[in-house]
Amino acid sequence: MKEHVHDAARRAREAAAVLALATRADKDAALIAMAEALVQSTGRILEANDADVAAARADGTPENVIDRLALDEGRVTSFAQGVRDVAALPDPVGEVVRGSTLPNGLELRQIRVPMGVIGMIYEGRPNVTADAAAICLKAGNASLLRGSRSAARSNAVIVEIMREAVAATGLPADVVQAISAEDRSTATHLMQARGLVDLVIPRGGAGLIRTVVEESTVPVIETGTGNVHVYVDADADLDMALDIVINSKTHRTSVCNAAESLLVHKAVADEFLPRVVAALREHGVVIHGDPAFMAVDPAVQAVTEEAYATEFLASEISARVVGSVDDAIAHIRRYSSGHTEAIVTRSLEAAHRFTRGVDSAAVMVNASTRFTDGGEFGFGAEIGISTQKLHARGPMGLQEMTTTTYIVTGDGQVR
Amino acid sequence: MKEHVHDAARRAREAAAVLALATRADKDAALIAMAEALVQSTGRILEANDADVAAARADGTPENVIDRLALDEGRVTSFAQGVRDVAALPDPVGEVVRGSTLPNGLELRQIRVPMGVIGMIYEGRPNVTADAAAICLKAGNASLLRGSRSAARSNAVIVEIMREAVAATGLPADVVQAISAEDRSTATHLMQARGLVDLVIPRGGAGLIRTVVEESTVPVIETGTGNVHVYVDADADLDMALDIVINSKTHRTSVCNAAESLLVHKAVADEFLPRVVAALREHGVVIHGDPAFMAVDPAVQAVTEEAYATEFLASEISARVVGSVDDAIAHIRRYSSGHTEAIVTRSLEAAHRFTRGVDSAAVMVNASTRFTDGGEFGFGAEIGISTQKLHARGPMGLQEMTTTTYIVTGDGQVR
Repeated sequence: MKEHVHDAARRAREAAAVLALATRADKDAALIAMAEALVQSTGRILEANDADVAAARADGTPENVIDRLALDEGRVTSFAQGVRDVAALPDPVGEVVRGSTLPNGLELRQIRVPMGVIGMIYEGRPNVTADAAAICLKAGNASLLRGSRSAARSNAVIVEIMREAVAATGLPADVVQAISAEDRSTATHLMQARGLVDLVIPRGGAGLIRTVVEESTVPVIETGTGNVHVYVDADADLDMALDIVINSKTHRTSVCNAAESLLVHKAVADEFLPRVVAALREHGVVIHGDPAFMAVDPAVQAVTEEAYATEFLASEISARVVGSVDDAIAHIRRYSSGHTEAIVTRSLEAAHRFTRGVDSAAVMVNASTRFTDGGEFGFGAEIGISTQKLHARGPMGLQEMTTTTYIVTGDGQVR
Repeated sequence: MKEHVHDAARRAREAAAVLALATRADKDAALIAMAEALVQSTGRILEANDADVAAARADGTPENVIDRLALDEGRVTSFAQGVRDVAALPDPVGEVVRGSTLPNGLELRQIRVPMGVIGMIYEGRPNVTADAAAICLKAGNASLLRGSRSAARSNAVIVEIMREAVAATGLPADVVQAISAEDRSTATHLMQARGLVDLVIPRGGAGLIRTVVEESTVPVIETGTGNVHVYVDADADLDMALDIVINSKTHRTSVCNAAESLLVHKAVADEFLPRVVAALREHGVVIHGDPAFMAVDPAVQAVTEEAYATEFLASEISARVVGSVDDAIAHIRRYSSGHTEAIVTRSLEAAHRFTRGVDSAAVMVNASTRFTDGGEFGFGAEIGISTQKLHARGPMGLQEMTTTTYIVTGDGQVR
């Protein structure tokens, strides 16, 4: 299996060298061809997907996992449109990041160039296959796509269709390759193909991400773990606070930017706790609260250290009353995964202290945590949300899929 | 030892949280105090350094290693001045990288913030201790400095002096800490303190860097391996080419931006090879050449695959005649470590093809490879030269020691 993965990576490197010299027009033509082919081949894709779904059902896979796996005409049209949308975005490659003329006359320019070969290791959803291939290609990178075994037939067909479409426009088909998911070891070989693969991005549950971070010798960008907090300050507009807490927690519970923990300043606890507890319960949210929350409603369960540290991804929330904005910051610094935090306040001082004090990829002031998203941020495409500090932090778009190089032009300068 | 390292990292995290809120004025005051204290304590530093040098001599350490270890008044003054220079640089923290107002009225700003805790693992030179501490501090980061055992006494005294100076200005002393080098395992514990340390930067030989890359679970920036090429094109000004080859190879052989390999277009081989071989030999450079080079001078040794792949860091060079700029690019893509390459040419087309075709951190057009350097690039300070593509590529200054965060300000927006 190692040779299978490394051979694919070598072909990807060669294809990436060609792709790096392609113009934006070349790349957009390939993307549009991919989108059209995906739509035209919807029948083939759904046939393969039906087989994946049937096999998953036969294995007793839970229905919520089946739902992520299953495609229909609408979902295919939607990810094909996603590929077309990527074509419409500006090309990050060639952007001059900075430049200057040095005292000795050397002209220095730092410009964006493709990373090279990007490995994606992901679970469930077959739409990630098209998304990831498109974003990598637009930024001039070859992609090695290692999806889950459960979606293997769907992914194989989607990749085959995209490769044919790319090749028909004159770019090498090997800019997009599927890595077999039959054997668990292919993921390991992919993340240890140092020198052949420039970057690995895991997308999936906490277990997958931890494995990749621990086992990879290729540089990794960690994505998507969100133990997200909303802090309601002493100076909060409590109607706004209620809206933001409910939206952050209940708009969609299974996503990484959903709130998992609520902190309330003691000065507004008497007024706010009964309101927020009632509203959360009305939305079916289980509350793990401190004694102040428990005193409001007997349905509030006693919070534990573990609950404070948990990303529920479900209709559950931990809740605590804090003595000050600094106490809120200290709690967040201790338990947060560094994804997104929100403060609701009318105080400029509290907002300033909070935004500077927490250490997370995104900080919302008087807005729902659900806005941490490449689409909402206007990036046009998103390949994941980085929760690490190196290279990319927060929603990652096309720029984050590039590196830079320094071009230095002289007329014979020596030292 | 693990607890020793992790306790230091925890103290560093607390200190970093305070440092993150410090103003530029606070940080510059600490840096200037550090610089003054280093100069005033030159006697103490040299005493400790004498003991390190004596112990190294007793161990039979080679003189070139002793030379890197040994300090004198001039060297102390020089690294103290380096600390002062860092104080004079602009503060990268708080810089707005991008910003926009989203359609729903949310105000989005991406701003530079400190990384947090940075671990440095380095060899030989005690000046790195002061350099690294200053650069980390200016960018708002706490540093954990793990130097070599041979410099342990010098490093301990330098760190102690800096800590006292920092504390006297009111910032926590724990923004600068030495990690004991008595035991090899402290380096391992440092690079595996995931969640406590945000970034590890190894500085030293290829062996050290490989170990850190393979064993670290903390994100790493790889530095400094330079298998650097100079390509003399068919359209080169051969006088300029000779200057650039000689300067790139011989100005300083032990540094990562020194040339290690020479490629010459066949069209100018007859004229250029005798000149460059004579000049290199005059500078005492051993040439590992292909048959064309060997035909020029019997002293040219037969080149091997291994020689093409070697970073000599000495008065040796591999040399080959190539058929085209594309052949030169293919050779470089195969053997280069991705640090720096140079082309000498009068042809705009060749320059364009070369700069786009090679895949390295810096590409020189008609200039010596020795210019790949934070000081030469005008960054004012350099913590190393990254040869990886993630986060930082090429010389790293203060900006590269920061990450970013998104601050999103609204008036109650929900999704």
